[in-house]
Amino acid sequence: MTQPTHEVLQRLSETLLARRNADPTTSYTAKLMANGPDAILKKIGEECAELIMAAKDGKKLNIVWESTDVIYHVMVLLAFNGLTIEDVFQEMRRREGISGIDEKAAREKKDV
Amino acid sequence: MTQPTHEVLQRLSETLLARRNADPTTSYTAKLMANGPDAILKKIGEECAELIMAAKDGKKLNIVWESTDVIYHVMVLLAFNGLTIEDVFQEMRRREGISGIDEKAAREKKDV
Amino acid sequence: MTQPTHEVLQRLSETLLARRNADPTTSYTAKLMANGPDAILKKIGEECAELIMAAKDGKKLNIVWESTDVIYHVMVLLAFNGLTIEDVFQEMRRREGISGIDEKAAREKKDV
Amino acid sequence: MTQPTHEVLQRLSETLLARRNADPTTSYTAKLMANGPDAILKKIGEECAELIMAAKDGKKLNIVWESTDVIYHVMVLLAFNGLTIEDVFQEMRRREGISGIDEKAAREKKDV
Repeated sequence: MTQPTHEVLQRLSETLLARRNADPTTSYTAKLMANGPDAILKKIGEECAELIMAAKDGKKLNIVWESTDVIYHVMVLLAFNGLTIEDVFQEMRRREGISGIDEKAAREKKDV
Repeated sequence: MTQPTHEVLQRLSETLLARRNADPTTSYTAKLMANGPDAILKKIGEECAELIMAAKDGKKLNIVWESTDVIYHVMVLLAFNGLTIEDVFQEMRRREGISGIDEKAAREKKDV
Repeated sequence: MTQPTHEVLQRLSETLLARRNADPTTSYTAKLMANGPDAILKKIGEECAELIMAAKDGKKLNIVWESTDVIYHVMVLLAFNGLTIEDVFQEMRRREGISGIDEKAAREKKDV
Repeated sequence: MTQPTHEVLQRLSETLLARRNADPTTSYTAKLMANGPDAILKKIGEECAELIMAAKDGKKLNIVWESTDVIYHVMVLLAFNGLTIEDVFQEMRRREGISGIDEKAAREKKDV
């Protein structure tokens, strides 16, 4: 029996939380986290640029790879802040049924 | 009985695919897709900048909001290209058990 | 007699410094500055994405336009912080004769 | 007698044009150009993220450094495309006296 594909996100979330205090020499992510928040944000900027480039090139495989890189590094940032993809799911559920424009307007009223 | 939280991603994927040919006046996403790929990529760049800013501010609620915005717009880009978050899950599963450095090296060998 | 072209930068620097406390309804830049630093940074992220897109499209006129937009908004950010393009020129002169790799290494030693 | 500071831009433009076909092992910029346009664009995305981070940190010296990095890499992109900062100056002069809003509207009419 195969595992549902989405469970990869939960496993990844747990792995990332565990990487926070791991030996930086043991993995790419442990090293990235040990380098601190600015290193993670720099990677997010870089991966975002690569996704834009992949989309302009129009190769679907590359779009999937770069989308994965962006989401992966957003999850690293979440984990670094003690958050998980579950927090993003809950925010997405909160927005369901609210139009994007209404949602943004509601947020701006709260002056966040 | 409550639905598993992650199912919001599947519902969102389906909604986004349906938005591709929807009347642009009916929703934020239908309008964004009707404006074409460059409009989506511009939003990704903007949301990426906002996530970096939120992370520097260090407010967790804002980090969750901006992470959601980035992932949401990446999903819009995927849908625009006939792809879904399921493609990202499969790529994540493929990478499981491969270290980041090995994975990147493997990709570069393929000269993608 | 024509003015040297580069003087546009000095004129622009002075205009931007003057825009800092100007009535937000009088110009695009006065409005952007009145909206605060995050509004300027969001624009920088957006213009950066647009420059990447223009470069991928390969149309020279668009590359010039988007490069101008990026440099313009960097100058708005400098002015917002009481700085000018002259500070950038001085930094460029400091770097002249230092290779990029040496320059970066020197900066990292200072742990900035 | 000191040289006017702005001349650093002209010297840099000439150096960058000369770097286009230079031996990649001789300088940071020759290597970057030899790596192709995507390598340059990736750096622009990265430097843009670093400028946003520096602005959030609010240290003026870092804002100047990161602004210089962004403008430097935009100039590398221009040179890669056979363009120079002079093209940006001419575009800035064209825009002088046109409000940002009018300028953008004029551009959109041309459907560029």
